[in-house]
Amino acid sequence: MKCKIGIIGLGNVGLGLVRILHNKRKALKGKYGFDFEITAISDPVKGSVYDESGLDLATVLDIIEKEGNLENYPSGIRNLNSMRTIRETNTNLIVEATPTNTRTGEPGLTHIKTALSNKKNVVTTNKGPIALHYQELKKLADENEVYLRFEGTVLSGTPALNLVLESLAGCDVSRIQGIVNGTTNFILTKMEEGKSYEDALAEAQKLGYAETDPTADVEGWDAAVKTVIMADVVMGENINIQDVERIGITGITLDDVKKAKENNHRIKLIAEVEKKDDTVKAKVLPREVPLTHPLANVMGAINALTFTTDHLGDVTIIGPGAGRIETGQALLADILALNRMLHKY
Amino acid sequence: MKCKIGIIGLGNVGLGLVRILHNKRKALKGKYGFDFEITAISDPVKGSVYDESGLDLATVLDIIEKEGNLENYPSGIRNLNSMRTIRETNTNLIVEATPTNTRTGEPGLTHIKTALSNKKNVVTTNKGPIALHYQELKKLADENEVYLRFEGTVLSGTPALNLVLESLAGCDVSRIQGIVNGTTNFILTKMEEGKSYEDALAEAQKLGYAETDPTADVEGWDAAVKTVIMADVVMGENINIQDVERIGITGITLDDVKKAKENNHRIKLIAEVEKKDDTVKAKVLPREVPLTHPLANVMGAINALTFTTDHLGDVTIIGPGAGRIETGQALLADILALNRMLHKY
Repeated sequence: MKCKIGIIGLGNVGLGLVRILHNKRKALKGKYGFDFEITAISDPVKGSVYDESGLDLATVLDIIEKEGNLENYPSGIRNLNSMRTIRETNTNLIVEATPTNTRTGEPGLTHIKTALSNKKNVVTTNKGPIALHYQELKKLADENEVYLRFEGTVLSGTPALNLVLESLAGCDVSRIQGIVNGTTNFILTKMEEGKSYEDALAEAQKLGYAETDPTADVEGWDAAVKTVIMADVVMGENINIQDVERIGITGITLDDVKKAKENNHRIKLIAEVEKKDDTVKAKVLPREVPLTHPLANVMGAINALTFTTDHLGDVTIIGPGAGRIETGQALLADILALNRMLHKY
Repeated sequence: MKCKIGIIGLGNVGLGLVRILHNKRKALKGKYGFDFEITAISDPVKGSVYDESGLDLATVLDIIEKEGNLENYPSGIRNLNSMRTIRETNTNLIVEATPTNTRTGEPGLTHIKTALSNKKNVVTTNKGPIALHYQELKKLADENEVYLRFEGTVLSGTPALNLVLESLAGCDVSRIQGIVNGTTNFILTKMEEGKSYEDALAEAQKLGYAETDPTADVEGWDAAVKTVIMADVVMGENINIQDVERIGITGITLDDVKKAKENNHRIKLIAEVEKKDDTVKAKVLPREVPLTHPLANVMGAINALTFTTDHLGDVTIIGPGAGRIETGQALLADILALNRMLHKY
């Protein structure tokens, strides 16, 4: 069965995936037996196009680069909105890559529910719906005998959820600790180099790591959302963002950073989920980590997670936590996992 | 379909797996839908027993602990040798866990070939057969439409091969660098603490990390075998252990270690496979690694691998590289992966 992909949301991540799939079509077929077409793309701003026989990806990329929208794509059915694209097109896999909303989960939540209810597999990088409604979505996927995968919601393409759920299958995980927000880790790294918090933040903004309003990053909200996802998905718990004890890095001074260093420690914004006596506690806090710990040496915008397990003790993964191609890779890994499952390849 | 497991080789690793499967039977069924029986065990020293309806694992563990062999297991068919166990029992998964031989691959090689030819899935931690004949075994598995998995041949249960082949699927890997031998890393760590090479080796031997004849570890042979597996499996190359440029750690002095440290470096025995212009080069060499590199901070008997990829840059995994339960976990993760594939769970 050929994979017929519908992409909902053609921002950086969706476009990153299209670029990878276009560049690697031959290699993916040869190495993984992965045979696909992108048959539909729908984006509220860039427009929508559906061609049952598959879109020409070179044309899509070219036209988006030159014109910024799909208006002049030369063939296919036009202007199906996202819901009609999910429901009415001949797709068996929906890639949900619309902007995340961590309060309502919309529009991603409705997109994902609709796709699953229509017996279409879903791959997404959208944190909101997973953080808010993982249990419900998982149930919906199971009932409809389709898959829901979302590696990219934590650490972008660096294996985090697939690592713990699949490669570490069989282990009991009692604790997850990590650096899951690149912006704050970049700021703390720059402060260790001697910059003030304000100067480090300004540099992060200049490089595109931090938004003009940096609250979501520096107050720990982004890390807290990822912590909720890990608690729900890995620990089987059902917690909300309000359940996460959360302190950001705005109170950290150059002096704090210097003093920690003198004691052979580094201040890191550590996300933590811990299971003890069947209770799960989730926190995001700045902490002094000893330099001998793998997380202490994760610098700049890089992310990392340490899983404490019964069979292996600590296992740590370190890699990028954001980026267009990096997050596109998360979608690709999930799509190839689906391909393995569906084709027993 | 119930998983009916035959275990060939009941040493530390095979026994580790039996213990895990016994302790976690209920949890594995609940969490992964994994339904199994171990129906056959065959070991040249500890004896052999086969019961189509499944062995009682509590009895197996108890009897092995008390008597060291399966002689008095109270029921079942006795004394089938390994080949008859593979061929003639009602098993659909063979766990090959006999001692490794990196020159001939035997007896594991014949066990694996026989199992695959008889259309039985194989899970193994046996380095020899994989390092010597991966391509041939992979072909045999494909022809017989069964799976061959061997996560435990590199980094024991710490995800290494499954990480790169599955969680990082879709990435091109241009280089793998790592610490894949715990004994030498332990010795180098102790030398940094001020011990001479000889004292550090003696301590490693006392703790059971190093053999009485430590050649395989300290001359880099063990690391070279794992390097061959990574080159063959990840890079799609077909190299031999003779193709690996190899220098061990016996020439490293306390003075070398001290000087490296003064320059903010650490000496590590680094295994490396690099693909450049379609040529694969494999090396195992002591190297000065800058303290800012994730591999520099991997201390003691811990192992690590850094994969350099096109989509993600560097991704590093750090975890244990040996141990009974740790290697049993590698078998378990592979078995659960098979279960996912065969049951579309």
